Amino acid sequence: MKLAPDPGVQSLSERDCWALLSEATLGRLAVTTDDGVDIFPVNYLVNNRSVLFRSAPGSKLLQLTEHPTVAFEVDDTRHRRALWSVVVKGVAQRLGFDSDIEQSGILALQSLNPTEKSNYIRIIPQTITGRRFEVPRRTSKRQGDR
Amino acid sequence: MKLAPDPGVQSLSERDCWALLSEATLGRLAVTTDDGVDIFPVNYLVNNRSVLFRSAPGSKLLQLTEHPTVAFEVDDTRHRRALWSVVVKGVAQRLGFDSDIEQSGILALQSLNPTEKSNYIRIIPQTITGRRFEVPRRTSKRQGDR
Repeated sequence: MKLAPDPGVQSLSERDCWALLSEATLGRLAVTTDDGVDIFPVNYLVNNRSVLFRSAPGSKLLQLTEHPTVAFEVDDTRHRRALWSVVVKGVAQRLGFDSDIEQSGILALQSLNPTEKSNYIRIIPQTITGRRFEVPRRTSKRQGDR
Repeated sequence: MKLAPDPGVQSLSERDCWALLSEATLGRLAVTTDDGVDIFPVNYLVNNRSVLFRSAPGSKLLQLTEHPTVAFEVDDTRHRRALWSVVVKGVAQRLGFDSDIEQSGILALQSLNPTEKSNYIRIIPQTITGRRFEVPRRTSKRQGDR
């Protein structure tokens, strides 16, 4: 089902998507699970057009091993709205070798919470898409600054 | 696979989760698709312990009809980190009757982009969970203010 382009939404080029992704450090990872879907905020970095993050051992990683197809979203929000949103879809892969981990640059990444994260994950992108949202001139008080 | 509690992460009560969810207005919706998973930022509101948002007709809604199981995540970020994160897992349902739409309060919601959104979706929650993250005292320059 294809629709006419939405006049309030501008598609971003792949180059713009990577540029925006590289400037931010916090995104949301959506994964499939045995009984549906789950979503986590993660700190990440971009290196050589792949997305890297750390994960504590446990259920999040276990799901990625069994269901490696993921979607990863990063956006920039102001005044309770998204200004842009970039989504990477791809396959999550654990970095299994010290040389891969060192070359990835992931060791420079400080994680979302300060406890030890001993697993390093790379998302190998299959698609990257982005949208820029037009912000209406008038906003109601309900949608005010945050 | 269960792990010992992470000392840097505090679980939130259901009551606290709903309170945090009710204060914010922008979340990320994760859905399953025919070929994996997708994720969208959406403006939402909470009414009577369900999550409501609008959706333009099209692929997002189509996926929800075929794959109604969703995860919806809201967080508060400062300095490129998440302070807390709440995740609702449940079933997405289109509001089909004018009376349901009016009673839901959804008509007060201003959507993410200003174009018309003629579909109203309710997430009927099955679980709600939340975590509060301890922020480390020292942060590197890489993770500085944003």
